[in-house]
Amino acid sequence: MDSLEELISAARGEIEIDLLLEGAEIVNTLSGEQHHADVAVHKGRVVGFDCRSARECIDLSGFVLSPGFIDGHVHIESAMVTVPEYARAVVPKGTTSVIIDPHEIANVLGIDGIRYMLESSRRAPLNVYVMLPSCVPATKMETSGAVLDAESLSELMDDERVLGLAEVMNFPGVVFRDPEVLKKIRLAGNKRVDGHAPQLTGRDLTAYIAAGIKSDHECTTLEEAKEKLRQGMHIMIREGSAAKNLLELLPLVTPQNARQFLFVSDDRHSADILREGHIDFMVRTAIKHGLDPILALQIASLNAAMYFGLRDLGAIAPGYRADIAVLDDLKSLKVVKVIKDGKLVAEDNYLTARLEGTPAPKGMTMRIGPIDIGSFMIRSEGIKSERIKSESIKLEKMKIRSELASARVIGIIPDQIITKSLAIQPKIANGLMVADPDNDVLKMAVIERHRATGNVGLGLVKGFGLQSGAIATSVAHDSHNIVVVGVTDEEMLDAVLKVKEMGGGLAVIKDGRIEASLTLPVAGLLSEMYMRDVAEGIDDCIDAAHDLGCQLKDPFMTLSFLCLPVIPELKLTDKGLVDVAKFQIVPLFMESA
Amino acid sequence: MDSLEELISAARGEIEIDLLLEGAEIVNTLSGEQHHADVAVHKGRVVGFDCRSARECIDLSGFVLSPGFIDGHVHIESAMVTVPEYARAVVPKGTTSVIIDPHEIANVLGIDGIRYMLESSRRAPLNVYVMLPSCVPATKMETSGAVLDAESLSELMDDERVLGLAEVMNFPGVVFRDPEVLKKIRLAGNKRVDGHAPQLTGRDLTAYIAAGIKSDHECTTLEEAKEKLRQGMHIMIREGSAAKNLLELLPLVTPQNARQFLFVSDDRHSADILREGHIDFMVRTAIKHGLDPILALQIASLNAAMYFGLRDLGAIAPGYRADIAVLDDLKSLKVVKVIKDGKLVAEDNYLTARLEGTPAPKGMTMRIGPIDIGSFMIRSEGIKSERIKSESIKLEKMKIRSELASARVIGIIPDQIITKSLAIQPKIANGLMVADPDNDVLKMAVIERHRATGNVGLGLVKGFGLQSGAIATSVAHDSHNIVVVGVTDEEMLDAVLKVKEMGGGLAVIKDGRIEASLTLPVAGLLSEMYMRDVAEGIDDCIDAAHDLGCQLKDPFMTLSFLCLPVIPELKLTDKGLVDVAKFQIVPLFMESA
Repeated sequence: MDSLEELISAARGEIEIDLLLEGAEIVNTLSGEQHHADVAVHKGRVVGFDCRSARECIDLSGFVLSPGFIDGHVHIESAMVTVPEYARAVVPKGTTSVIIDPHEIANVLGIDGIRYMLESSRRAPLNVYVMLPSCVPATKMETSGAVLDAESLSELMDDERVLGLAEVMNFPGVVFRDPEVLKKIRLAGNKRVDGHAPQLTGRDLTAYIAAGIKSDHECTTLEEAKEKLRQGMHIMIREGSAAKNLLELLPLVTPQNARQFLFVSDDRHSADILREGHIDFMVRTAIKHGLDPILALQIASLNAAMYFGLRDLGAIAPGYRADIAVLDDLKSLKVVKVIKDGKLVAEDNYLTARLEGTPAPKGMTMRIGPIDIGSFMIRSEGIKSERIKSESIKLEKMKIRSELASARVIGIIPDQIITKSLAIQPKIANGLMVADPDNDVLKMAVIERHRATGNVGLGLVKGFGLQSGAIATSVAHDSHNIVVVGVTDEEMLDAVLKVKEMGGGLAVIKDGRIEASLTLPVAGLLSEMYMRDVAEGIDDCIDAAHDLGCQLKDPFMTLSFLCLPVIPELKLTDKGLVDVAKFQIVPLFMESA
Repeated sequence: MDSLEELISAARGEIEIDLLLEGAEIVNTLSGEQHHADVAVHKGRVVGFDCRSARECIDLSGFVLSPGFIDGHVHIESAMVTVPEYARAVVPKGTTSVIIDPHEIANVLGIDGIRYMLESSRRAPLNVYVMLPSCVPATKMETSGAVLDAESLSELMDDERVLGLAEVMNFPGVVFRDPEVLKKIRLAGNKRVDGHAPQLTGRDLTAYIAAGIKSDHECTTLEEAKEKLRQGMHIMIREGSAAKNLLELLPLVTPQNARQFLFVSDDRHSADILREGHIDFMVRTAIKHGLDPILALQIASLNAAMYFGLRDLGAIAPGYRADIAVLDDLKSLKVVKVIKDGKLVAEDNYLTARLEGTPAPKGMTMRIGPIDIGSFMIRSEGIKSERIKSESIKLEKMKIRSELASARVIGIIPDQIITKSLAIQPKIANGLMVADPDNDVLKMAVIERHRATGNVGLGLVKGFGLQSGAIATSVAHDSHNIVVVGVTDEEMLDAVLKVKEMGGGLAVIKDGRIEASLTLPVAGLLSEMYMRDVAEGIDDCIDAAHDLGCQLKDPFMTLSFLCLPVIPELKLTDKGLVDVAKFQIVPLFMESA
């Protein structure tokens, strides 16, 4: 508010106010009840319930007003759209605030990526707050576009829209007291430190919490959430695209503990946002499954505001920002209008507010270097490797020469991001290891794309089901190098070159031709198109992958997690195969054949 | 915590911890339940529930552990003891944190008084946080020992134990946008601004809240509290000595809104603390009247911590300060032991921790100047006044010469701090107005004692019932000048001189002799004795006043509020009679006889 004086005048009724929302009931998250109120709004803030006139009046008789929803933890990058386009999609669904962890773009662009997210959201009809990514890069066993140490983060920690340190995934770093990790936690000071501690339990969990980490969004079972809740964590109930925990965790919520819960989407894809919704979907589902609507809406708004110390969000009351979701009723939870900072910004699932673009830090995120594939071949007793010199990515780089030995093969588990580590005798042809589609063993590569190191990690994967062709993407957690899986080296190369040419994106190669593709020019992660078009583009790519024989529900999501070396059991980075349990790079071929 | 590293080690069980509280149930204010937990404590903090050994173990089987209680708003001065002595009394009752408004001592000593409260509490086994007094002095119609403007307050606002701006009593200053008042509110920034808005309603209330004032402890009716709650105020339920609102407001609490409530004592006298208890009394009473014990204990601990942003208080969970009340059970709510920062500090209602004194800013708070009583006599058509020159307070100063006119007389309403403005024909003797004990009209004076201005305000009061003698006190809200009421001028003077001689305190004069007295050497407000002795001293003074014929329950409390010119209808300050509705000084005698 520019002027406290004007706010007070407006509340007293001394001046004509901007807007009056007449006739509705409001969900009062503070008094914990639903009651009639004509909501007066001035200069973007609620100024009372007693006003009778205004410059503009909107009759909302029959509707229910809820505080705008707050997503307590989201990686917007998972929707593959820019912040304004994200706003275009989620604001009409009643979401007026998001607390983002720009972890993906930070892995590519570092502090500049975070600044871009802050900048591009400045004029969006959505409050965008940032938790600073705590684990960039995720490990030292991969090459990322940036390394964010405590000193780098300190540049942004004092920003008024920065609310703390994002999900601390490096739990060993916490419990074993890695100085750099603790430095980051100390840096947060009075701001929040979010957790990420799947299945962490017992003393290690206690130590992690004692370090000051007071939330978790990774609970998948009631028991896990109960343990964390009892020890003081705020439980962020997540309903993402891959991980869906709402129905499992809902029984834990009681009126006595509800304030410790938040709703978050974490990683939610465009298609799911468009089809099911966002936080509104969680509220609707929770109410349908028996949660008291008042508690559900407190969880969806006030609780996140309280947790993050956002004192003028999460309620419809004097002095609060006028961020309001107008609902048909508390059963359908259909959002018919959205008011943001006192302005009508969406109606009937359509954003009416104008969006302003922000120049994206495009290009230069596909720095693929001249590398020699031979230098990354795994030597073992069972394998003779041969260096092949070359100046750029060529067909030969994709070849793995092999004899006899058993190979470590990444075994996909459908719908999960964990994998199995399999031991399989690879197929050899002309002294080179090749894909074996009959047994669903395909070749896979991760091509470093940030610093032109020339790194190419090579591996084998079982479970993709491709009978021909190749698929590639520059979305590959967490370092977002280019990952490709395919049947022939030629098509793998084509797929990678297509991703490079687009400046990032998804590509499907069939019979040597580009069958489908989606351009993601912003950091190789985000499109600048509408969310609907992005969702269609992804669907096209998925369909094309299915045409190649893949039966995974979302092959690109599966592919993107095959590079994440903090999730068991076997992953591939640009530096090679990672045995996650051992937390080290391991040879492709096993010691003894 | 000095060392995050050590805390983490202790939580992981890598090192021997300090203390283990074994066998008890805990009230988990976060998970909203009661459950078994062996509470491990190290370096003053809770480090988990799974430990089996420690340097010291205390078997608490059969007991229930609650987070230590937090008093969300208290003027310690009302107990007339120093902070350490206050701690000695309330800590054994389970109170481990208080948020004080050192408003009284600030009226006498200004910033130095606030610093003294901070300093004298630094080593007490009680967390003492400060809200900076917002209204010193209360009005310009009185002389206080200090004037605290925004600039003075800014010296202390950044102190880590200062949590914001205390009760903004000057509601007209807010709603009419007094620049200095808004400057103080802005000064609080992200810290809290507490309210004080008895009976404020409608648009003015909305404006007051919109200004950022988010709590109130002055609700006396359910309707009043409901209106404030709906508009977003945190309702501080008060159970003081004079104002008791618990039973009236309790029905408003529901599981859906309970987090908006706090328990506070505001002004609670030593006798009541010793006899009934402190926050424990409120919890016990609330539970007895049907409030869910979990909600009651959340209100008594976690809610205040959340409201004030004290993130490591209000729960028994890893990382939280080990401030724990050990209860017999949740029905009797008898506090059997108290742990403060991991140390046993009280047992069986007895403080076992050592207390350290802090040199008090004594003396020099009884600066009574040579004044001329005549200059304060009220001239009117009905009265002839006569100036009597003198160099110091003498008998003559107490005389009011009068003829015929009706006088404005302060009419006491038993057990209330509001008064009536009465019109009474005063008794005249030898051309001087005198007390008329037969009609219970007594003389009253307020003697300025901070700056030796010589100001003496003179008036009449009905309702004290003294048949002879005089009573005086240096506790006189809010400026704490010396107030005296009596039958003869001689005895009034004796009473004032006794208060002066003591350097502050209470005095009762009977038959020209000192019948009872209590010394309050710290700012004329606080004793340095045990609370029990102070309570006895007050009782002696009250008994002596009763012997003089007074039938008021607590004549000194009544007397102390007769000077507070913000409470209707008629009050007396050192500058004269104040018509509170008109908010101005008015003559003692009415215009027409």
